[in-house]
Amino acid sequence: MNAIGNPAPRVDADLKVTGAARYTVDLALPRMLHAKVLRSPHAHARVAHVDARRAAAMPGVAAVVTRDDLGGLNATYGYFIKDQPIVAIDKVRYIGDMVAAVAAETEEQAVRALEAIEVRYEPLATVATIEQALAPAAPALFEIPPPGIVPAYGAGASGFKDPAKNVCYRFCYTHGDAAAFARADRVFTDEFRFSRMQHYHLEPFVTLARVEAGQIELWSSCQNPFPLRKELARVFNHPEQNIRVHVPFVGAGYGAKNNCKTEPIAVLLAKLSGRPVRFCMTMEENFLTQSQHAAILRLETGVTNDGRFVARRSEILLDAGAYSDASPLVAEKAGYRINGPYRWEFIDSRCDCVMTNTTPAGPFRGFGGTQASWASESQIDMIARRLGIDPVTLRKKNLLKLGEAYVPGESGMDSDLAEGLDLVCREIGYGRGERTKGRGIGIAIGFKDSGGVNKPAEAQVKATTTGGIIVNSGTIEIGQGIQTALTRVVAELFACPSARVSYGPIDTDVTPFDQGTNASSAIVVMGQAVERAARDCIARILDFAASQLNCMPGDLRLENWAVVKDNQAHPLAPMIMRHFGGTGFEFVGRGYFKPETDHHAPLEAKCVSWEIGWGAAEVDVDEETGRVVVRKLVVSGDAGRAIHKDACRGQDEGAAMMGLGQALFETMRYDGPVLANIAAARYRVPLASDLPESFRAVTQEQGHGPGPFGAKGMGEAGMLPVAAAIANAIEDAVGARVASLPLSPEKVLAAIEAKRAKAEDK
Amino acid sequence: MNAIGNPAPRVDADLKVTGAARYTVDLALPRMLHAKVLRSPHAHARVAHVDARRAAAMPGVAAVVTRDDLGGLNATYGYFIKDQPIVAIDKVRYIGDMVAAVAAETEEQAVRALEAIEVRYEPLATVATIEQALAPAAPALFEIPPPGIVPAYGAGASGFKDPAKNVCYRFCYTHGDAAAFARADRVFTDEFRFSRMQHYHLEPFVTLARVEAGQIELWSSCQNPFPLRKELARVFNHPEQNIRVHVPFVGAGYGAKNNCKTEPIAVLLAKLSGRPVRFCMTMEENFLTQSQHAAILRLETGVTNDGRFVARRSEILLDAGAYSDASPLVAEKAGYRINGPYRWEFIDSRCDCVMTNTTPAGPFRGFGGTQASWASESQIDMIARRLGIDPVTLRKKNLLKLGEAYVPGESGMDSDLAEGLDLVCREIGYGRGERTKGRGIGIAIGFKDSGGVNKPAEAQVKATTTGGIIVNSGTIEIGQGIQTALTRVVAELFACPSARVSYGPIDTDVTPFDQGTNASSAIVVMGQAVERAARDCIARILDFAASQLNCMPGDLRLENWAVVKDNQAHPLAPMIMRHFGGTGFEFVGRGYFKPETDHHAPLEAKCVSWEIGWGAAEVDVDEETGRVVVRKLVVSGDAGRAIHKDACRGQDEGAAMMGLGQALFETMRYDGPVLANIAAARYRVPLASDLPESFRAVTQEQGHGPGPFGAKGMGEAGMLPVAAAIANAIEDAVGARVASLPLSPEKVLAAIEAKRAKAEDK
Repeated sequence: MNAIGNPAPRVDADLKVTGAARYTVDLALPRMLHAKVLRSPHAHARVAHVDARRAAAMPGVAAVVTRDDLGGLNATYGYFIKDQPIVAIDKVRYIGDMVAAVAAETEEQAVRALEAIEVRYEPLATVATIEQALAPAAPALFEIPPPGIVPAYGAGASGFKDPAKNVCYRFCYTHGDAAAFARADRVFTDEFRFSRMQHYHLEPFVTLARVEAGQIELWSSCQNPFPLRKELARVFNHPEQNIRVHVPFVGAGYGAKNNCKTEPIAVLLAKLSGRPVRFCMTMEENFLTQSQHAAILRLETGVTNDGRFVARRSEILLDAGAYSDASPLVAEKAGYRINGPYRWEFIDSRCDCVMTNTTPAGPFRGFGGTQASWASESQIDMIARRLGIDPVTLRKKNLLKLGEAYVPGESGMDSDLAEGLDLVCREIGYGRGERTKGRGIGIAIGFKDSGGVNKPAEAQVKATTTGGIIVNSGTIEIGQGIQTALTRVVAELFACPSARVSYGPIDTDVTPFDQGTNASSAIVVMGQAVERAARDCIARILDFAASQLNCMPGDLRLENWAVVKDNQAHPLAPMIMRHFGGTGFEFVGRGYFKPETDHHAPLEAKCVSWEIGWGAAEVDVDEETGRVVVRKLVVSGDAGRAIHKDACRGQDEGAAMMGLGQALFETMRYDGPVLANIAAARYRVPLASDLPESFRAVTQEQGHGPGPFGAKGMGEAGMLPVAAAIANAIEDAVGARVASLPLSPEKVLAAIEAKRAKAEDK
Repeated sequence: MNAIGNPAPRVDADLKVTGAARYTVDLALPRMLHAKVLRSPHAHARVAHVDARRAAAMPGVAAVVTRDDLGGLNATYGYFIKDQPIVAIDKVRYIGDMVAAVAAETEEQAVRALEAIEVRYEPLATVATIEQALAPAAPALFEIPPPGIVPAYGAGASGFKDPAKNVCYRFCYTHGDAAAFARADRVFTDEFRFSRMQHYHLEPFVTLARVEAGQIELWSSCQNPFPLRKELARVFNHPEQNIRVHVPFVGAGYGAKNNCKTEPIAVLLAKLSGRPVRFCMTMEENFLTQSQHAAILRLETGVTNDGRFVARRSEILLDAGAYSDASPLVAEKAGYRINGPYRWEFIDSRCDCVMTNTTPAGPFRGFGGTQASWASESQIDMIARRLGIDPVTLRKKNLLKLGEAYVPGESGMDSDLAEGLDLVCREIGYGRGERTKGRGIGIAIGFKDSGGVNKPAEAQVKATTTGGIIVNSGTIEIGQGIQTALTRVVAELFACPSARVSYGPIDTDVTPFDQGTNASSAIVVMGQAVERAARDCIARILDFAASQLNCMPGDLRLENWAVVKDNQAHPLAPMIMRHFGGTGFEFVGRGYFKPETDHHAPLEAKCVSWEIGWGAAEVDVDEETGRVVVRKLVVSGDAGRAIHKDACRGQDEGAAMMGLGQALFETMRYDGPVLANIAAARYRVPLASDLPESFRAVTQEQGHGPGPFGAKGMGEAGMLPVAAAIANAIEDAVGARVASLPLSPEKVLAAIEAKRAKAEDK
């Protein structure tokens, strides 16, 4: 192996270290305008009146958009349900809902013009929480179900249903026989609460759009340019071939940058003004645009006295916020993943998306798996304690084996789960050493399928006359290192230095199609497409060389831009020049990969790969204050084969820190429908000083992945086990269980006090 | 036919009419510098001393380039022979040769800094004409032959040869038996002179370059981005995969915009300054950068008394100017095409590229064919008159038939030559009406092979979920209408409105490889690649649809983004959404075309297509002043199949006007090595008032072309016959022959007077 596992710096290292890497925020076009939006101060109100005439006449203002400017458009968008308007039409549904937009010469002028827009609201009753939204007399966010529900993947999936007016989607999945519950010795019912984070991507939502002579062109900080193009084509009734989306480097997304955010307003303002428009949100506006899903998870779990998992019924309620966005898909993932990587006789899962008058929730690292792992791995520990079985032993007894299907018809596990569990136990010192008062260790296993749903991917690999190689793939470099991974896979196959391989631009007019950079799909889906493209390209080169050397392609192998035959190297460049003439040529290979649709599989398609995150935490809990200090944190993902070890470790470390924030303090705090900690300064993210004294991310390379050279997707898994591991460690330390995130001192103290009270009762 | 021949406006019409079309001259980047170059005032001199230190310290100057800054580079470039330095190294070789360059904040500052560069020249003797350059004691432009000669295509081709020090290339081609001359009743030897034009493209040579973190990126007004990338990779010792060339719309090229012009200096200044650099020449600088080849052509032609062509020996001397550029290839084309579309028993052609201390000559519309057609078609008329045979009858007797090979081993004629000849005769009224004093009619047939040498082309056609189609091809829209032609071919194949098809960007990182937009190759070479790509894409779509409809692909046809089976249309979009999921897909087809290398063919490869331009002119000649008025001009090309009739006519009209300028007045006038009419205002191009009273371009559609739907390349042919037709008309009008271009009143008058003197002698 030459390129795989090579510790040389990432392919984007120079660009990023020198500041030359270009992000959408960095771009400018001549005559560019700046957009700003007017946002609703009401969480739920009818919009009685909007008048932007005065704003339109303000200095520097080139275009204004209100609901009166949506004629001829399909003015609502959404992943599945088309419920989110470009700007408010009849109602506003959360504080921050966009009501009007202005494009002006400067941001200052745009902001000033917003102040001149007259809006009269007629406030309506609000629902700020899942409970309020489900209450019998709750006001409905949508009186009439909006159009566009796409029947998603689970059997029993359904959209808006009366009387549950605020449930925009229900996912159900059952397998096995409900009678299994009767075979359980004990059935435990527990409820868990999951609080929502903001994605906190450092590059805000930003789009630069230009509309000229029937061509829409945009540069956007976006995870899925092709689906974005498709949605914009629908919204603007504009042919797809006349919409061109460029995606420069993306300053992180964590799921937030899928589909329409700043794009429809930027495009509409560009169309109306005839000038390029830049719409860049502030960090505060990010908080009003997208969040993770808060959740309530109820688990009814039947086990035998000796610790065999038998049956589980689960009910998950996701807080979808004011618009549906990707909630149906998040619901499917949470509902499908809730049972963890264990063997069950019967499972029955339901997951509802509940709309509330809060920031719309969307895809977020872990994609439903974070919520599911939090609840499931917490309850498994609780069950272990109730049965008097060691939590690790209990897990091992029920863990699926390598190759064993999650449920019948599903793909087999492509990681050895026990191996990873042993590793983190070893790393954290599980079961070793003496117990210290107030100190405990917790373990958890995060679990999700990865690779996305039914995702097709295309890739192209081209080789120039002198052996320069360019990978063309629609996968976005979003910080995860995928340019490095894919170019090294190609370098390995071409047996050339990785510096000979570059990564092409993302431009929907020319770049091969991809569904999106999400679901840890890049290496297992696009990676396979790229590998096939590289092999196709190499085959074409060897065919050509064989025709020039009068031999069979099988007699040749490629090495350092020469073909080797009987240990003699024949350089390719002169051979190409001879045949193709003085101006040379490019050999091009194409690759395609799509998980086969399979109607026998539980969700119509087998999962591409399983992404597992093993975690272990050691905590000190101050029983007087409830303060938790995470002393040691170990996370481990299985990269299958680590194409670039540092990048893999970086992914696991970043995910673990995000999980740490989620576990201990990071949350969007709502006071009714009012987001109390909207400003970046008031929203607590992990600081360097929050780093545990001992913090390790260990990248396993078990080698069973479906990606190139056995690689598997990663980057989400490190986040999945952290909160449960810490909660489990707290219980291990002080015997108190906190079932609600974040694990704040108040909650920990309350749990300790409740435990004391209970002990005193006895 | 739905899209082919449809008179709807060109695909780029809206963009160009509204001014939205973006050319390289329109582009700007943040922090962009402006480049200017210091040019030699000497035609030939040793550069004794260059010092730019004072210039480098001037206000606003960010970088300076002299020969001292070429370290580590392969500092000379060229199509074949690498003889042209980025800036002068040891010598300057023509007035305008680039000696140093400056990048500054403004063009003014750059110009001011140039004035501060100290250069000491040691003047050398100059050669300003072909005759001077070939004289025994002529000074040599290159004492040592520069490197990089690529043995070109003709047998006997050779590079720099002693003692002919200033002959940088010789092309030779012979076929048949020299004894054939003995079978001729008469042998005529005539000499013709061809004067050179400047290309006069309205968008000047211009490049915008950026060099960052090892990536070279440039936007250039360029006809062949892939060969340009290759040459820059060689010059800068930079990997091809880290050089990215974009080509926006090009404001014409006429051949001039092949290979390095502004690019090396722009890239080098960008590299040295670390900032983007724009190098845009003035119209005057264009005159110092590239020109057509002036030529002397000597023809020795043997015919029988009844007008059968028997044998021809030709010697062509091309004035290559100071650097070789594409001269070897122009020499091949001139030498190979000199005998016209006629049957010969023996031909023996030689063409030398002679270097002079003048502006380097390069590719120019007609590519050697203009020089050849001028001489050959003039002589044929002269021979007709000498033999007392009607010039049209004489041509018809010797014209190759449809399908007949030019020479053994060559491709057959793919136009019926007599049909085109009859057409222009009919249009001009040949042989009809009464003769008017001083009025005459002339006919000529321009002739060239088209499609380029050995050109490989790749194309891609992609179709989105909703049936938007994007054509990806490296062919440049240079005004000729190729975006329209290629998108309509695809629309026709897809049986959809042509508005559903768009043309992708030119970006060497992603666009499929093409050798260059030249040689009228786009429709016959790239057109075939695009057609194949479209058919490949359609086949993939039908395969997919058949799999969904449980039938055979052969049961289906594509129409308006539905598949039709048994007269029932099944829309594709929902079928794609069902199979590929909510985010859709793109079907991609690839196409490749390359004329097969054939070592039995005269030049190692058969020509792809023959491009014929039939012309006829009626002139009034004022016998007192020599003034020629072209009353009627008819040109006709054969488009094979006209994809867009207006665009074809526009090509023939534009070419005819260029031919008219060449015939009558357009010439770079040298006073020794000094270009006397360098400024645009002093260089005479055709004006609207020069338009003949009757001017017609008739596009034939004979249907025999190798391109899609029988199409053939065009755009050059209309220029080829014009000068000879007018010279022939002048002789018809006043019995005087002018064998030297342009056909100025002075020369015409001199010829009339010579004729009178001769008549008086008798």
